[in-house]
Amino acid sequence: MPPEAKSSGDDTPVCCPLYHEAVEMIGRRWTGAIVEVLLQRHGSLRYTEISHAVPQLSDRLLSERLKELEQRGVVEREVSPGPPVQVAYGLTDMGRSLEPAVRELKEWARRWLN
Amino acid sequence: MPPEAKSSGDDTPVCCPLYHEAVEMIGRRWTGAIVEVLLQRHGSLRYTEISHAVPQLSDRLLSERLKELEQRGVVEREVSPGPPVQVAYGLTDMGRSLEPAVRELKEWARRWLN
Repeated sequence: MPPEAKSSGDDTPVCCPLYHEAVEMIGRRWTGAIVEVLLQRHGSLRYTEISHAVPQLSDRLLSERLKELEQRGVVEREVSPGPPVQVAYGLTDMGRSLEPAVRELKEWARRWLN
Repeated sequence: MPPEAKSSGDDTPVCCPLYHEAVEMIGRRWTGAIVEVLLQRHGSLRYTEISHAVPQLSDRLLSERLKELEQRGVVEREVSPGPPVQVAYGLTDMGRSLEPAVRELKEWARRWLN
């Protein structure tokens, strides 16, 4: 029986905890935007490119979010030896797999929030 | 040219503002869980049924989130005359259209967060 069909004995639906974790991760302030911007590139983006793509996001929050996504295994940080040393961020396989969910949400947004 | 292809002149991707609004709406604490639970039913759910389906959610926050979703047009409140008066919550067409995005995110969560 899949988790969403689990019953608490009185036919009440139960929220899937893994989905819950995922939706709060991607919905964390600015995280969804950062992931969407990284999905637009097959390769990686430099810090300043992400920063320009999401202009209202402060440097402090961008660093924090990128660190969180790296710890989650969604983003990987690539350092190429310089000079000058270049730091770039790309999606891991786990991160890139968010593409269908992001695409569906984008379609929903264009239809209903426009 | 679709919004995600817009360039700021130096080939930097730009985050789609409608998607950004959508992902922060659904990712707001507990909102994604409430929508998922409502998607499991074709009809509507009583307040206590939603509350049981998302057990860690406080009454105050559940009321607040339902009110927000109602204002957004995602949820509709149905009052059936009593006695006793029954209040139930269901998804509007706009809310039900979130199903593909929620399904994809659930699949991602099961694959990567398990």
